[in-house]
Amino acid sequence: MTPQDPRFRLATAADLPAIVRMLADDNLGSQRERYETPLPAVYRSVFEQIESDPNHELIVAEQDGEVIGTLHLMFLPSLSFQGGLRAQVESVRVDKRVQNQGIGSKMMKWAMERAQQRGAHVVQLTTHKTRLDAHRFYERLGFKGSHLGMKLSLK
Amino acid sequence: MTPQDPRFRLATAADLPAIVRMLADDNLGSQRERYETPLPAVYRSVFEQIESDPNHELIVAEQDGEVIGTLHLMFLPSLSFQGGLRAQVESVRVDKRVQNQGIGSKMMKWAMERAQQRGAHVVQLTTHKTRLDAHRFYERLGFKGSHLGMKLSLK
Repeated sequence: MTPQDPRFRLATAADLPAIVRMLADDNLGSQRERYETPLPAVYRSVFEQIESDPNHELIVAEQDGEVIGTLHLMFLPSLSFQGGLRAQVESVRVDKRVQNQGIGSKMMKWAMERAQQRGAHVVQLTTHKTRLDAHRFYERLGFKGSHLGMKLSLK
Repeated sequence: MTPQDPRFRLATAADLPAIVRMLADDNLGSQRERYETPLPAVYRSVFEQIESDPNHELIVAEQDGEVIGTLHLMFLPSLSFQGGLRAQVESVRVDKRVQNQGIGSKMMKWAMERAQQRGAHVVQLTTHKTRLDAHRFYERLGFKGSHLGMKLSLK
């Protein structure tokens, strides 16, 4: 059976287990997340914050009735660039069962269009230096790796 | 006369001309900003959005009654890291007249403490790859340049 084209929509609370499963399903994520039943309450409470903030759009990709991708699109008002709105993409995941089928690319293009609709002048993201496949993926979408992304852990 | 220690506080609308002056006062900024009298209205309208959003703190450094530094601290709720709050720093500027006096470092340390107070697990920022002095500055503060920062212009 040919899979349906993925469709993209805002996540609902019912999507949370699928989203956390994808966040947990890689080397880094498996050490950071708690994909358990029931889901730790902190995920639901942060989801509510995200859902109620118009500057945040938590997106899922759905195909044949299943959630198979996610990304978190943030809109950041900023004075610089003459008060230009920035869009930022975080927590991009595609389910391992459907990788290398172009779903990540379709999902990112959807997010880029959404950012343009809302008037953002730039889409920004960071990706770990070692993830050369991700760098090429984002370059093919038109992103330029012009910046160094720096992090300071507070814990 | 020995200058006072800088103090740090939330920006008010009255600080906007000084902030935009600093944003405009470098090679990149001079092409992007409009530091004019009166200040273009877009800066005031975006300032109001920032000021009314509890996830944004636009900070100024003040010394001897003058605004001599600014940074924009953003708090980003996120599902990843078990719903861990991220702090992001953007638009860091120190007035050219008082550079190399440790003001940027004091301002960043203030922001790092503020991020910790609000429960963030990480402070993140990006800086242009060519700005090696900035990389060293942030490394001295404990930041690690672990990521590639990618941008896509939508204009």
